[in-house]
Amino acid sequence: MINEETLHKVSEQLRQAMITSSEKPPGMDWSKRPGSSEICCNPEEFGDHSVVDFSRFIVVHGAGSFGHFQASKSSVHKGQLNKPLVKAGFVATRISVTTLTLEIIRALAREGIPSVGISPFSCGWFTRERQVSSADLSSVAKAIDSGFTPVLHGDAVLDEILGCTILSGDVIISHLAAYSKPEYVVFLTDVHGVYDRPPTEPDAILLKEIAVSEDGSWSVLKPKLQNSIELTVAAHDTTGGMQTKISEAAMIAKLGIDVYIVKAATSHSLRALTGDLRRDIPDDWLGTVVRSSR
Amino acid sequence: MINEETLHKVSEQLRQAMITSSEKPPGMDWSKRPGSSEICCNPEEFGDHSVVDFSRFIVVHGAGSFGHFQASKSSVHKGQLNKPLVKAGFVATRISVTTLTLEIIRALAREGIPSVGISPFSCGWFTRERQVSSADLSSVAKAIDSGFTPVLHGDAVLDEILGCTILSGDVIISHLAAYSKPEYVVFLTDVHGVYDRPPTEPDAILLKEIAVSEDGSWSVLKPKLQNSIELTVAAHDTTGGMQTKISEAAMIAKLGIDVYIVKAATSHSLRALTGDLRRDIPDDWLGTVVRSSR
Repeated sequence: MINEETLHKVSEQLRQAMITSSEKPPGMDWSKRPGSSEICCNPEEFGDHSVVDFSRFIVVHGAGSFGHFQASKSSVHKGQLNKPLVKAGFVATRISVTTLTLEIIRALAREGIPSVGISPFSCGWFTRERQVSSADLSSVAKAIDSGFTPVLHGDAVLDEILGCTILSGDVIISHLAAYSKPEYVVFLTDVHGVYDRPPTEPDAILLKEIAVSEDGSWSVLKPKLQNSIELTVAAHDTTGGMQTKISEAAMIAKLGIDVYIVKAATSHSLRALTGDLRRDIPDDWLGTVVRSSR
Repeated sequence: MINEETLHKVSEQLRQAMITSSEKPPGMDWSKRPGSSEICCNPEEFGDHSVVDFSRFIVVHGAGSFGHFQASKSSVHKGQLNKPLVKAGFVATRISVTTLTLEIIRALAREGIPSVGISPFSCGWFTRERQVSSADLSSVAKAIDSGFTPVLHGDAVLDEILGCTILSGDVIISHLAAYSKPEYVVFLTDVHGVYDRPPTEPDAILLKEIAVSEDGSWSVLKPKLQNSIELTVAAHDTTGGMQTKISEAAMIAKLGIDVYIVKAATSHSLRALTGDLRRDIPDDWLGTVVRSSR
């Protein structure tokens, strides 16, 4: 199930990062729920409002429990669309991630963020043996230029060789980062950042700063560690958990873009989202910075 | 609200039109509902099933009461995205039509139709003074080639001159028809077809056959009429009701493609969907055929 409280908090923090004004703009979710004929909309609210200037953000989310179950149950990530179960799993996965993205778009819209959904499957993202082979980014660019906040998500997509696969939100982020060259990228997760071992283990150490070199290799700058590192991978994630995040974060850092991996809906995520960390990282900030070693 | 019974019936008829086998394939909607942690999925059902051969269909639906309200309340169809109300209306409209399309995709998936949503806004449909100026149809083509049934819908889109506007499902259909050259096109409505005056009037006559000439002008072949014709336009439709349907149907007919305008969820719509009318139109069939006069 969606953690409504976290979703609300994340949307609120994103609004705070996007709009400098302390006043919350009117909500934009006037939608009907299925089975309801009620619409909440108050156009008068907008009368006196001048156009709010939003910082430009792109939101990408994963499938979470919406999609991973369907995808793994039917092995959509392995392809073979000629199998009825895979084809059905593809349809089921897309329905499920669309359900999730709609709830996220709504939560953002309720905060007054002009969010518009752009599904990778429908906007021309295709893969070739699981690597992005084409991605139409014109819709994303035009949406941003028109003052909207595009929302993309991990999705089931067509693969030129395998037939189909799962494209993870993390891969989408690094692809978008290479294209749009953002000032910084924030990964919101359910732990404080990258640890040297599964964070449930008692001695797990939070890696506060990781430097990525030109050749893609990376080293932990803070804290100073004795031993080499074992990485934590969530079991239930068809597209790789923290490992994918770290390798995609490293790809982004290599472009000279700082990446913050941080626990969602905390004071730490707010600082990351607002760009407070760009000059320097306060000692009391909990999270992982991944940046270029240059 | 969605008329669940009609939606179910329409989905069932579409399945009957797409699959010759009388056996219903397993459902493909394994999705979670928001607020529920339950998933219904039975992969075993697919074990013994051979790949079902589906006829190729594209489904396009309008916004109905999902979207028209939001769009007209904020004048999204007139553009001016710099106005906060229009921008909010754009977001609200997209949320609302996405909610509707998800329910339609689910209803189709429950019938075993491998439906995948492709939103015009996200897949590169843009307009220029309300005329389609570009439309990326590669996602639609690839989805069909991979054995899926694309589902498109009337949507809020960006307009190069106006900023934004509403693109009606009817316009999308004629654009897709010109591109994909289907054997026939069916418009499902809530009346039996095109009448010579508002169908609520007691003497309204159903126009059974309309011929469209090379220059786009059209004439009623059946029944023989004494007077010229006044057309019915639904009041609550921001993108034009029956008038848009007829003019788009005429555009399609000019390409040599027969168009059937018929009441949804009736024996007449089933005959239209299955292609039974291609040879000749039985006298007891209720509906309007629009075809080229050549």
